[in-house]
Amino acid sequence: MGYLETYFDRLLPIIEADLRSVLTPPEEAPALPYRMLHYHMGWVDAHGNPIEGKRGKRLRPAITLLACEASGSHYDAARPAGAAVELIHNFSLLHDDVQDQSQTRHGRATTWTIWGANQAINTGDMMYALANLAIRRLSGQGTDPALLARQVFLVNDTCLELTRGQHLDMAFETRDEVSVEEYLDMISGKTGALTATSAQIGAIAAGASAEVCEHYRQFGFNLGMAFQIQDDILDIWGDEQQTGKQAAIDIYQRKKSLPVLYGLAQSESLRALYRDYPVFAAAEVSQVIMRLDEVDARGYARELVQRYTSQTLEHLRAAKPAEEAGQALLELVGMLLNRQK
Amino acid sequence: MGYLETYFDRLLPIIEADLRSVLTPPEEAPALPYRMLHYHMGWVDAHGNPIEGKRGKRLRPAITLLACEASGSHYDAARPAGAAVELIHNFSLLHDDVQDQSQTRHGRATTWTIWGANQAINTGDMMYALANLAIRRLSGQGTDPALLARQVFLVNDTCLELTRGQHLDMAFETRDEVSVEEYLDMISGKTGALTATSAQIGAIAAGASAEVCEHYRQFGFNLGMAFQIQDDILDIWGDEQQTGKQAAIDIYQRKKSLPVLYGLAQSESLRALYRDYPVFAAAEVSQVIMRLDEVDARGYARELVQRYTSQTLEHLRAAKPAEEAGQALLELVGMLLNRQK
Repeated sequence: MGYLETYFDRLLPIIEADLRSVLTPPEEAPALPYRMLHYHMGWVDAHGNPIEGKRGKRLRPAITLLACEASGSHYDAARPAGAAVELIHNFSLLHDDVQDQSQTRHGRATTWTIWGANQAINTGDMMYALANLAIRRLSGQGTDPALLARQVFLVNDTCLELTRGQHLDMAFETRDEVSVEEYLDMISGKTGALTATSAQIGAIAAGASAEVCEHYRQFGFNLGMAFQIQDDILDIWGDEQQTGKQAAIDIYQRKKSLPVLYGLAQSESLRALYRDYPVFAAAEVSQVIMRLDEVDARGYARELVQRYTSQTLEHLRAAKPAEEAGQALLELVGMLLNRQK
Repeated sequence: MGYLETYFDRLLPIIEADLRSVLTPPEEAPALPYRMLHYHMGWVDAHGNPIEGKRGKRLRPAITLLACEASGSHYDAARPAGAAVELIHNFSLLHDDVQDQSQTRHGRATTWTIWGANQAINTGDMMYALANLAIRRLSGQGTDPALLARQVFLVNDTCLELTRGQHLDMAFETRDEVSVEEYLDMISGKTGALTATSAQIGAIAAGASAEVCEHYRQFGFNLGMAFQIQDDILDIWGDEQQTGKQAAIDIYQRKKSLPVLYGLAQSESLRALYRDYPVFAAAEVSQVIMRLDEVDARGYARELVQRYTSQTLEHLRAAKPAEEAGQALLELVGMLLNRQK
């Protein structure tokens, strides 16, 4: 993990400083909405006091900056785009948490539980505006306006995809049958689109060729897809001690994750369980997992992770990344896809 | 009203066609989220069947196109920006309706009452993305990227202001005391910012000088402020028959509108009413209006409308608008600020 660690040590403080710069309130701005933003980002507690604690991993901007360096430019060129993708990610989390009524994120109370859903919706909207503005604010005065325009429109193409994925995700909750294909389409919007853009926009900022940009896009897309399915697997079969989450929470919440959808398509007895029990207690959850194991839903999901991982690596190779940053991206893939939590 | 009518006849179908073009679903897109957008825009019913009925007045894009013509260019140059400001307006309405739990808009059930708050939040996010993308999609291939970038960032500066205003509006609900100054600051974000941009961006699209663009900005800002305060007056003293709304609904809902805030600052007996009655019935509403009349809150609000109107007209004059479009803008001001509904 040598290259990646070196990069993380160098890049994460820069990413964090850029995010803070974009989210700095102008003089005269009311303090509270910015405090909500800073709270969500993990910088302050609900009273506005600085904290050090668990935050998002800032993986998307790290990918952006690494893709830029791997495309032969200094990461500075990609800093505006890196801040934008991270803020877009956080805009979507703010609204997701309201929509899912999630109580905690990174072990802290979610923004809406403190200030109410209405203010959290507004804080998300504010984060969206600032994500777009990050492209302008963090770019140097002399930046080519064509590059600014290209980046900001790409960010909004991506948001459109995010809302498509989120729409499907919410629509699936009330549907009886969802196919594996539909699920993959949903996560391609909800997860794949932003990781795709995170890598592509780094290459764009570096001025890479259309072909190289497309390879980074595919690299990021496949990485996001593999990551999400891996997440689905860890939820059900991961070690609670390592993940830090309640085991099989997706099953308790009857979430239509990939292994479950595959299982439902394969197993009549699993379909019967979902039909007969409107609420799952521990006994039903064990039953569900047993049925999933019978049809080897884990194996099926792992195979998909494997397939997306191969694509990820293939596109990275095809992009002919510069040595060190390319190595760091390779290590990042390994870290994300071999994780136990 | 000759010039304005002529312009409306010419421009409104073009504005509507541009909005429809931006909101056309791409092939393969799930149909439902676009149906929600079209429903909100007043184009279809909840089943997706086309309807003709009451819609938004598309005033903001009309101002954009007129400001462009008044600045000496054909309105075509401002069509992307016009669509963007109207979609931004509608994005904010979608979220407002969720936040305020408003049941109806233009006499139709609001989007969230049909598809739920979660989907309506997502539809608003989608509208925001499409508003940004309108700038690119409706601009010709050869458009100067610097102009694209300038417009899209201005739109997002404006959204930041919208969220500031919305934050304050919601925060005021739970506060005991709000000053008239704070109220004006709130509506400058919630209303003035977008009408300011609607006019300014039309002049920008026309390639007007910085000075002229600033006059249009001030024109739009003051117009929005006057319009909003006029709205507050009509709510309390307007003719129910003409406004089509329940009279004094702001008072029933204890909304801190400008006349109420002025009255509260002036009248101890009004403060006592708000203190002593947590819920207002018809008798209390009559009492409130009587107290407002005692301190001539209507006169105070009218004076403010007058002041903002003078500023509006002054900046329009200073912008030296081209004859016909300038005349149409003048008629628009008259129509909006002398309305009885």
